[in-house]
Amino acid sequence: MSLDREKQLAAIEAVKYVKSGMTVGLGTGSTAAHMVKELGRLVQNGLEIVGVPSSENTNKLATELGIPLTTLEKTNGIDVYIDGTDEFDPYMQLIKGGGGALLREKILTYNSDLVIIIADSKKEVKRLGDFKLPVETIPFATKKIEQLLQKMGLHPKLRLKDGSNFVTDEGNFILDLDMAHVSNIQLLESNLKQIPGIVETGLFLDMADIIIIGKGETTITLKK
Amino acid sequence: MSLDREKQLAAIEAVKYVKSGMTVGLGTGSTAAHMVKELGRLVQNGLEIVGVPSSENTNKLATELGIPLTTLEKTNGIDVYIDGTDEFDPYMQLIKGGGGALLREKILTYNSDLVIIIADSKKEVKRLGDFKLPVETIPFATKKIEQLLQKMGLHPKLRLKDGSNFVTDEGNFILDLDMAHVSNIQLLESNLKQIPGIVETGLFLDMADIIIIGKGETTITLKK
Repeated sequence: MSLDREKQLAAIEAVKYVKSGMTVGLGTGSTAAHMVKELGRLVQNGLEIVGVPSSENTNKLATELGIPLTTLEKTNGIDVYIDGTDEFDPYMQLIKGGGGALLREKILTYNSDLVIIIADSKKEVKRLGDFKLPVETIPFATKKIEQLLQKMGLHPKLRLKDGSNFVTDEGNFILDLDMAHVSNIQLLESNLKQIPGIVETGLFLDMADIIIIGKGETTITLKK
Repeated sequence: MSLDREKQLAAIEAVKYVKSGMTVGLGTGSTAAHMVKELGRLVQNGLEIVGVPSSENTNKLATELGIPLTTLEKTNGIDVYIDGTDEFDPYMQLIKGGGGALLREKILTYNSDLVIIIADSKKEVKRLGDFKLPVETIPFATKKIEQLLQKMGLHPKLRLKDGSNFVTDEGNFILDLDMAHVSNIQLLESNLKQIPGIVETGLFLDMADIIIIGKGETTITLKK
């Protein structure tokens, strides 16, 4: 429960960056849900924004809360994007994608003027890799990619849900990789993205502008 | 008609590399169709192979011709992959994807021990880029990618079919880029693949092992 409170405090702090007239990218996951709820409350009180959801789940939640929504292609760009993370390190590098929405999240992050990451205090790590790194793969190629990544020592595990393959919003699969022993994450990212059939990875490098961490009953803000 | 004859001659020459027992990757397009037909004829005469098609279209053609088929994930790898190309340069670098099957084609190419490209004599260029470079994009991100590539001077054009967006076998869109003025194609490839929402490009760099060109009533073979 206290971690959940930390998520909520970080979310409340993050939405202070949101002003009327802005286009706001809406992340996915339990921490982002706090932010969406907080924005919903502010919209009820007169805040005028339009949201761009990063998943079908967030679309549903934001719609229920009365937040006006649009799509990325209809915007002139996103003013601020707010989302959770699975891990962040002292250099503000992230692993995301535990919820499986990494592709749209990364697209929105890439197209946003300001990227704010919110997290509870357990998400901070000295070095990325306790969390498994998700990569989104084309089903046609997934088996061969799995074999290749196994040879690269990354111990890929095909993500399952209810006994079947987990399927992303774009109809792809997820392989979760063990990158605990990888020393150069920039090189890993670049190498993974050269492999045909890997659509995206959960490494968000040099993308976060601000990280807001809930810690007990307060928050800590990191800026780039 | 003579270009079609050149395609056929290249196809006939290419299938000489195929031996009984092999797993054969089957390309897509008008040149590859000659190769599939020639393989179909040889299978009727006792050649024992199993094919891995690179598109729904090739799947259909090969099935009609009685070629036993499998999927990439069920193979232990592909012995030889044969496909056409839209352009090739003196360094055996390719632009592919005019038919829209570049993603599966690139995945198969990447997973094949031997890659044979077949072409008529008009496909040879001194420098890549007369042909537009196709890139496959996630629909969610396509508009923003189009705007970004426009800023990069690549004049993207969204590919249409019968008045609607062309949709790939994986449900994605295609942007055709003008890369005539790009001087470093390796850097272009690497930069494009870092953009979230670009799934794959039609640049096949250092992937062709053999190129067989039909020229009049003969063929020319280039080897790496």
